[in-house]
Amino acid sequence: MQNRVYIKDLKDRIKEEIIVAGWVDVRRDQGKMVFFDMRDMTGKVQCVALPSRAEVIEKAKEIRPEWVLKITGVVNKRPEKNIKAGVLNGEVELEVTGIEVLSEAESLPFDLNTEVNLDTYLDYLPYKLRTQRAKDIFQMQASILNAYRNSLRQQGFTEFIAPALVGGDAEGGAAAFKVDYFNDQTAFLATSPQFYKQIMVGPFERTFTVAKIFRAEKSATTRHLSEATCLDFEMGFIENESEPMKVLETAIRDTVEAIGKLHSDIFSRFQTTVPEIPEKIPVFTLAEAQNTIAKEFNRKIEDTNDMAPEDERQICEYAKKNLQSDFVFITRFPTKKRAFYTYEDPKEAPFSRGFDLLFRGLEINSGAQRIHDYDSLLGRIKERGMDPNKFSYYLQAFKYGMPPHGGSSTGLERFTARMLELQNVKEATAFPRDMTRIDNRLSE
Amino acid sequence: MQNRVYIKDLKDRIKEEIIVAGWVDVRRDQGKMVFFDMRDMTGKVQCVALPSRAEVIEKAKEIRPEWVLKITGVVNKRPEKNIKAGVLNGEVELEVTGIEVLSEAESLPFDLNTEVNLDTYLDYLPYKLRTQRAKDIFQMQASILNAYRNSLRQQGFTEFIAPALVGGDAEGGAAAFKVDYFNDQTAFLATSPQFYKQIMVGPFERTFTVAKIFRAEKSATTRHLSEATCLDFEMGFIENESEPMKVLETAIRDTVEAIGKLHSDIFSRFQTTVPEIPEKIPVFTLAEAQNTIAKEFNRKIEDTNDMAPEDERQICEYAKKNLQSDFVFITRFPTKKRAFYTYEDPKEAPFSRGFDLLFRGLEINSGAQRIHDYDSLLGRIKERGMDPNKFSYYLQAFKYGMPPHGGSSTGLERFTARMLELQNVKEATAFPRDMTRIDNRLSE
Repeated sequence: MQNRVYIKDLKDRIKEEIIVAGWVDVRRDQGKMVFFDMRDMTGKVQCVALPSRAEVIEKAKEIRPEWVLKITGVVNKRPEKNIKAGVLNGEVELEVTGIEVLSEAESLPFDLNTEVNLDTYLDYLPYKLRTQRAKDIFQMQASILNAYRNSLRQQGFTEFIAPALVGGDAEGGAAAFKVDYFNDQTAFLATSPQFYKQIMVGPFERTFTVAKIFRAEKSATTRHLSEATCLDFEMGFIENESEPMKVLETAIRDTVEAIGKLHSDIFSRFQTTVPEIPEKIPVFTLAEAQNTIAKEFNRKIEDTNDMAPEDERQICEYAKKNLQSDFVFITRFPTKKRAFYTYEDPKEAPFSRGFDLLFRGLEINSGAQRIHDYDSLLGRIKERGMDPNKFSYYLQAFKYGMPPHGGSSTGLERFTARMLELQNVKEATAFPRDMTRIDNRLSE
Repeated sequence: MQNRVYIKDLKDRIKEEIIVAGWVDVRRDQGKMVFFDMRDMTGKVQCVALPSRAEVIEKAKEIRPEWVLKITGVVNKRPEKNIKAGVLNGEVELEVTGIEVLSEAESLPFDLNTEVNLDTYLDYLPYKLRTQRAKDIFQMQASILNAYRNSLRQQGFTEFIAPALVGGDAEGGAAAFKVDYFNDQTAFLATSPQFYKQIMVGPFERTFTVAKIFRAEKSATTRHLSEATCLDFEMGFIENESEPMKVLETAIRDTVEAIGKLHSDIFSRFQTTVPEIPEKIPVFTLAEAQNTIAKEFNRKIEDTNDMAPEDERQICEYAKKNLQSDFVFITRFPTKKRAFYTYEDPKEAPFSRGFDLLFRGLEINSGAQRIHDYDSLLGRIKERGMDPNKFSYYLQAFKYGMPPHGGSSTGLERFTARMLELQNVKEATAFPRDMTRIDNRLSE
């Protein structure tokens, strides 16, 4: 739009007549004057329609919240007593000289900023995404994505595009959605880009992908989604899992640093802080973590083979208080609890070279050194009762020489949710899908 | 891996004993000596095993192409007569002092660089992705992705994640794959992120996404894929389609500039050149383009409502020769040939505000100004015989005030394919899916 000025730049245009465009935020009539706030992608400004301009005041009385307007007006300094310090445009207002309606809005279901429950929020998402809260969450997510990718690129990783349609429910475990493919064939939706990033170690050695994953698990918790986004990387020529852990630690540190610089305002609006990362993220073996929890929180650990959600919360609480870290690595899970391709050094049996990264009480990343030897991988597949024929494409990479390698996978929505301490991972998903909803609620 | 030196850095380590790791590329026995090339992510180097080192020469005789090795060796200058100028490590070789086998390879189906037909190539993709050719294609694609996103971000766009699972086959046209969702419900795979990026104009005004799209069309051409990746953006507060065209032109220019700087070696290996873009990408209306073709190529146009593939090739040929441009915009298609949400100004009827961008003979992008008025959009949906109830979520954004807006969608695989003048878009897809293949060939 020609000559449009962004609202954040008005303070540099005092006494000029300029054009702004955006949404009506609120309207207040005061005697014969009409006040309304205009909102664009950069901020808000108060507009004043004076009774001396007949045409303007008439139109100003018609407009309603969420109407889209093109406003011509003069930027005035506010009278001393009306200045709001520390607020964008707190010291200026726009004296309206012309109003052009670009788009009207029907009557609203509720004011934009009304607090509603999660289901109503999701019913009205196309509208509610315009709140400052939603804008903050997804601005933060965009910055996380960008910073994370930049860090991996700087660490020598090459991006690739992983497929979403796959031929089989290969990994087992997480249930896969079925797709009606051509000629009555059944395809599946990928539950992970794991196999493909391992294959890409062949050409690139260090590779990453931002991929969609799909889970048909009948779970309705605050941490599950039917469709999620993962930040995956994989790297060749490692000696053990400490190398992918180091790459991940650097990516996390770079990301936190970048968003800390960009978004201090968002952290403060969410009444939280930029995460703390000490010089080195603390590493506990599973046994060390559970011993620490048992001692510190004076309780018995139910399952010593895996971390329960309560364990994750408590070890994070411990690390935050005693080690000034919002992140904790857990290593040395029993091999039997990890994916079939997880490497186990015979000297370290029955423990694997897998690791998890916890952030503010929640697992946001899972990684490992992988099996790279063809025969060992084949053996493990059989040992788990799976059919090697289903893995022939994947196994081809190993048949023709694969270096020792490892990597990890970070859940973007979980990472975003814990960054802003959101209760439900759905709030960190622009268009969440779950058992009961794809955009609209599904009929029973 | 500790102390590993990348192969590209060997020329700075003359006379030092160092460690490299990678794949055996080729092996040549010459008298009592064994020569073999090692390949890592940064390049290749010739290794020499001398008969004076019994243990080394014995192992060197065992190794085969694609075995993964860790080599200890001394970097030597080659004798004058063996220097290969202009080739990485053409002036050095590695005198092997130790060989550690990290991984063996089974006997290979054919040498890595053997030229095979497309079907065989795809059957052996996990292996063939290691060729220089495949590495070049996907390195180029990674750079395109990065440059395109950077340009949009610099132009004030915020990234968001579009969903792949959608509730209905809303747009019609391109057939959508069905997914078995929870509780016997049917979901679909998105054929475009269109609705979601329009909704995101509400919070961000300028927004982009790199999204997966899925097409169940029974097409087996060199330009079709069942699963593809699109680079989509959408922007609010425009006056007409020239604004998104300008944003797109800038993104294309920035991308071409970035990859031109990074990848002159790849362009030359593919015997093509960095695309030419004049000061302004030429714009033809559909009628102008077809009149030009009719005149220049002395032929009759069959369909004056749309561009046939032959039309696309010829107008590009014309523009390359006469206007020094590898890109051409086509505008003013009849509204009836465009998606239902395409804006038509009554003064311009029956032509729409849609546009296509052609690149080296192929449409790689389609865009438009969109309808932003709720009632007009509802009217258009009904006019096309579609059911507005299926669009309720999408329509919500328009009900509550939507600015004039527009955007476009670029096919990443097509963009990559034309960049390197690949014959088939499948070669520009790391793991292509089509009617007959998901990784492996599907049984009939």
